[in-house]
Amino acid sequence: MKSKDQGKKVVALAGGVGGAKLADGLAQTLNPERLTVIVNTGDDFEHFNLHISPDLDTVCYTLAGKANPITGWGLAGESWNMLEGLGILGGPTWFRLGDRDLATHLERTRRLRQGQTLSQVTRDFCRAWGVTVRVLPMSDQPVRTIVLSAEHDALPFQDYFVRLQCRPRVRGFRFEGIETAQPAPGVLSALHEANCVILCPSNPWVSLDPILAVPGIREALLRRRETDRLPVIAVTPIIRGETIKGPAAKMYTELGIQPSALAVARHYCGLISAFVLDSQDEALQPEIAALGIDTLVEDTIMKTPHDRQRLARKILEFTGILP
Amino acid sequence: MKSKDQGKKVVALAGGVGGAKLADGLAQTLNPERLTVIVNTGDDFEHFNLHISPDLDTVCYTLAGKANPITGWGLAGESWNMLEGLGILGGPTWFRLGDRDLATHLERTRRLRQGQTLSQVTRDFCRAWGVTVRVLPMSDQPVRTIVLSAEHDALPFQDYFVRLQCRPRVRGFRFEGIETAQPAPGVLSALHEANCVILCPSNPWVSLDPILAVPGIREALLRRRETDRLPVIAVTPIIRGETIKGPAAKMYTELGIQPSALAVARHYCGLISAFVLDSQDEALQPEIAALGIDTLVEDTIMKTPHDRQRLARKILEFTGILP
Repeated sequence: MKSKDQGKKVVALAGGVGGAKLADGLAQTLNPERLTVIVNTGDDFEHFNLHISPDLDTVCYTLAGKANPITGWGLAGESWNMLEGLGILGGPTWFRLGDRDLATHLERTRRLRQGQTLSQVTRDFCRAWGVTVRVLPMSDQPVRTIVLSAEHDALPFQDYFVRLQCRPRVRGFRFEGIETAQPAPGVLSALHEANCVILCPSNPWVSLDPILAVPGIREALLRRRETDRLPVIAVTPIIRGETIKGPAAKMYTELGIQPSALAVARHYCGLISAFVLDSQDEALQPEIAALGIDTLVEDTIMKTPHDRQRLARKILEFTGILP
Repeated sequence: MKSKDQGKKVVALAGGVGGAKLADGLAQTLNPERLTVIVNTGDDFEHFNLHISPDLDTVCYTLAGKANPITGWGLAGESWNMLEGLGILGGPTWFRLGDRDLATHLERTRRLRQGQTLSQVTRDFCRAWGVTVRVLPMSDQPVRTIVLSAEHDALPFQDYFVRLQCRPRVRGFRFEGIETAQPAPGVLSALHEANCVILCPSNPWVSLDPILAVPGIREALLRRRETDRLPVIAVTPIIRGETIKGPAAKMYTELGIQPSALAVARHYCGLISAFVLDSQDEALQPEIAALGIDTLVEDTIMKTPHDRQRLARKILEFTGILP
């Protein structure tokens, strides 16, 4: 029995695979005009002179039902003939550019060079792919996440993440261009109209912090929290000290913080009103509650589309968006 | 019984499909160090900010045994998943970018942007593809063939050739950048050392004229003709007033010249010492001979790899390169 809510509006902040899954659960549960997904663009980069937006693509492909169900990123039924040819020529193959995926990068880059903004391109692509919820890049200006590491000094994010497979020890992060970035059109008004903001289970350091660091976004959230008691709820990306995917737990450790749902709750302390921790971490509930944060203990692992919907519904019920 | 010649050197000037086939026949017949193929780059263009060299690719793919045997251009066993995705996004699909072919364009463009020259990239690609004969672009500087037409004024060649499918009526041609272009490294020395130069059955107006128009190339041929009686032999791309492929015959007609092997021989008159016309055009032989041009009447249609070799061998025997 699936009831769709007609009124209250939700904003989700999302990075890559984990964020995309919860965003998809929300999209399956709410009428499309009620949901806005604001996506990290800090790990965007240029490769072969193509503008690649990995998180935007993961979110859009997932919402379109086109995502590779095994990897979570890339497209289902992808072929790799370009990459094979590139290997024969001795070109750089560390970033896995699929044939179908290339259409996205080529056409996005062509349109950006024509003067369109990233949000315009994203809106048009969503329309072409049948994505009905609103997906916004956090900013139309380039922001580039730089990983500061012991071994490599300053690493562009994709070099750290894909080429070096997260091996370098992290010392910190820098978001290049963040000072002059502005929230993309629609971002601030979505936050202003939201009845609930959900921080998806994405990497706090390199997926959600870049979004929150765009001048005006964190401020808007804090203002709405203060004036309207806006529910802002974060979903843990860490379960039993580990991440389902990605280097968040490794990053906490290298930064001298024990990775846990508690560490994530502390990360967002002051910003969030509520926190979803996994049932396996129930023992941490009192410590999180002691931070003045409401808690929801739930199964947060999303293996199936049904898991996504179930978790989304629990969160929406907990925050009063759904009855 | 296949004998390979050990000494005399051959230079072939080639455009796309027809030129590539004869170049392949020559490559199958001569030791690789004896053959240099100089390729038209006048129809190079930028598409999706990629540097695309259609004739260079057709020649190299053919020499590598990777060409699509049906179309003559593109790669055998190609897939079109990028193009399908591009169509969904409403991007420009008029130029058929295959998935495997894209590796060539992406990696070439990447290397050119790093500062490598087109001839360096071509040499490296040939090595990777196992092409052992030397393939040289006519120039490392950009030359762009512009089709002057009644309906569209000045059209970049690929717009005329692919997008508008040769429909506009041709009034003339312009080779943009030709004044400042230089023969690519190795071109003039190859012409200097050649014992025979073959103008492949390519479009005289838009495949071979651009090569001959690069400052220094025609002059080198004329000088060698005068001082050493260098054999320069052209192979007709027109049979019974028609072309196997491409718009050469249509161009002759639109320029007010009746398309025929004779028209092609006249086109090159003063430059060539000999001309290969098709057996079907034997009746034209006396008129071509009357121009002071030696003639070889042969079956020039190359349907099979064996046809290519047979024609190559006949030409090499006729010019005294093979006994």
